[in-house]
Amino acid sequence: MPETIPANSVGLVTPQTLHFDETLKLDCGQELDSYDIVYETYGELNADKSNAILICHALSGDHHAAGYHSMEDRKPGWWEAAIGSGKPFDTDKFFIVSSNNIGGCKGSTGPASINPETGKPFGSDFPIVTVKDWIRTQVSLSDKLGISQWAAVVGGSLGGMQVLQWSIDYPERLKNAVVIAAAPRLSAQNIAFNEVARQAIITDPEFHNGHFYDYDTVPERGLKLARMLGHITYLSDESMGKKFGRELREGSIKYGYDIEFQIESYLRYQGQSFVHRFDANTYLLMTKALDYFDPAAEYDDNLAKAFERSQAKFFVASFTTDWRFSPERSQEIVRALLDAHKPVTYVEIEAPQGHDAFLMPIPDYFSALQAFMNNVAEEL
Amino acid sequence: MPETIPANSVGLVTPQTLHFDETLKLDCGQELDSYDIVYETYGELNADKSNAILICHALSGDHHAAGYHSMEDRKPGWWEAAIGSGKPFDTDKFFIVSSNNIGGCKGSTGPASINPETGKPFGSDFPIVTVKDWIRTQVSLSDKLGISQWAAVVGGSLGGMQVLQWSIDYPERLKNAVVIAAAPRLSAQNIAFNEVARQAIITDPEFHNGHFYDYDTVPERGLKLARMLGHITYLSDESMGKKFGRELREGSIKYGYDIEFQIESYLRYQGQSFVHRFDANTYLLMTKALDYFDPAAEYDDNLAKAFERSQAKFFVASFTTDWRFSPERSQEIVRALLDAHKPVTYVEIEAPQGHDAFLMPIPDYFSALQAFMNNVAEEL
Repeated sequence: MPETIPANSVGLVTPQTLHFDETLKLDCGQELDSYDIVYETYGELNADKSNAILICHALSGDHHAAGYHSMEDRKPGWWEAAIGSGKPFDTDKFFIVSSNNIGGCKGSTGPASINPETGKPFGSDFPIVTVKDWIRTQVSLSDKLGISQWAAVVGGSLGGMQVLQWSIDYPERLKNAVVIAAAPRLSAQNIAFNEVARQAIITDPEFHNGHFYDYDTVPERGLKLARMLGHITYLSDESMGKKFGRELREGSIKYGYDIEFQIESYLRYQGQSFVHRFDANTYLLMTKALDYFDPAAEYDDNLAKAFERSQAKFFVASFTTDWRFSPERSQEIVRALLDAHKPVTYVEIEAPQGHDAFLMPIPDYFSALQAFMNNVAEEL
Repeated sequence: MPETIPANSVGLVTPQTLHFDETLKLDCGQELDSYDIVYETYGELNADKSNAILICHALSGDHHAAGYHSMEDRKPGWWEAAIGSGKPFDTDKFFIVSSNNIGGCKGSTGPASINPETGKPFGSDFPIVTVKDWIRTQVSLSDKLGISQWAAVVGGSLGGMQVLQWSIDYPERLKNAVVIAAAPRLSAQNIAFNEVARQAIITDPEFHNGHFYDYDTVPERGLKLARMLGHITYLSDESMGKKFGRELREGSIKYGYDIEFQIESYLRYQGQSFVHRFDANTYLLMTKALDYFDPAAEYDDNLAKAFERSQAKFFVASFTTDWRFSPERSQEIVRALLDAHKPVTYVEIEAPQGHDAFLMPIPDYFSALQAFMNNVAEEL
């Protein structure tokens, strides 16, 4: 619980829900007859509705990007450092919208929602959703909010991929694109890690073919393994080494399978705390959206060609020790933008934190982001 | 099945077993009253027993390093490329011994062996073994074979760690040390991957606290996940990209959880084929031996000090794209050897194959190895 909420926080926020009573045709060929989207907003929309920023979340993220839901909350939203008064996404200047993707587990329609055809949770019958599908729903959200053009669409990791897709599919609907720690598509190694995570979940006997809700259980073991593995890829070898090294939890070796090293303790804790706040089917869906993301595929595998119609100014950032989506992957994006003669600012940030760096208020990173966003504000 | 066995293969080989009726005190504080070691030999021991080479195996390796067990064998031993007539470990010059470590699952005493106290398989009651324990048993094996000094002790990965421990614990018993793709100790990230693999096995309901033999089952799901994860760390991002990229198995996306990408197919196959030829308890033991390996710990965390009594000439090799044990880890070994004023040859091999490169006949690598081993032969 925050004793007092810091003055530069957006403070207490209340998620809102919009119901979309329209058929959503998905890339997989299936349809949703209707769907809900949960979102939060921070700051005030100006009169001509030109100061709106859309935040797209990553794999395990959600709409709660900033502020607190109550005075009892132990932690603020996941990007509290970046959103608020005087921060890079400055709520004194911008109206910020952060929405939960469909397929998620925090309020937007997803696998735990009731399937109108059966009266029971969708479970694994929830259709596979793609980044393109998410953009379609975010466009519908934009329409309902009366925002015809976003001042910026912003995201890190899988969120950054959504930004790329926005700029390609709806070029006239965003003026700026902020793409952090992303990649133009997954590598074989990226897919391989996702596949191990999926197999951990799917082969857990408590998964019940994705209908575990009906059995009043969760595939705890599988989801825990998936999260532990995820965490290895979010941190760098360097940051893990600095944070944990080979430090023993109890000072001496016990020669057993209980926790010996602090890193084991950290991973088990991260895994365990995840299983009761995240849905296994959503985890599967998110990894699939990552695997399938490949905007260049529709443009002869030519990313520059994919960007041709884009009208946004781009800000691209990568982090030196990020090995999930390394600087080379951001450079692919930058090179394609340059080949397509699009304006792009690129910063490669020296940071030991690995992929997780995108969530952190690293001074060089936030300075660059703030400078870019100041320009966005000036051009409103 | 080999139609005909190539002339430079060691040909048909038969594993041998030696029984050691002596109490083995282990680092963990437990004892084994007696134990068996299975081993193979290739080439002929010379009259003064000076031409013997010991091969130490890696995590999932065993004593079958070269040749064929029968004309029906589909594959030769795991280091066929390196062992044989005219090869780096030349059976025209050397007498090569390859033994299976205790705790293993290919014939040496291990978790599937009968525990004399219960009349049932040890299972998880098999004590934790360390690299130092293995060296003790290999010294006993050397004594029984009448080999007072090895011309060389050789190994890759976890095998290379055994070579380092040999040179520190029994300096007078080896003239040369060949350490390939190894590390002086695991990093936090290395331990983290091992921990995920262990948790996959241990939390599999079929594991039955390590006594799955009694239930006539194996923790297939967990061991499969562990192996899939292992394979990601054996290959480089680059080699996975070249081999599989984003190639689809059936040419188009199916939007489901069956195999979409070739890399998924590869991983599942590697995992599945492993579960029926490897023991889950052995996998756990091997990862623990890796985690605990830290020869400098007894020497004030000073690796150079650990090497002070060493009398061997060293050959150290690393591979540019190996991210499990990167060239930097081999360089730590080389630096410590130089600080201790020990003779060392170091080669960093340009190779796209990642950690697995150590098993492969890469020309630059094999040339360097052969040159070093020629010197070893000349000094016999």
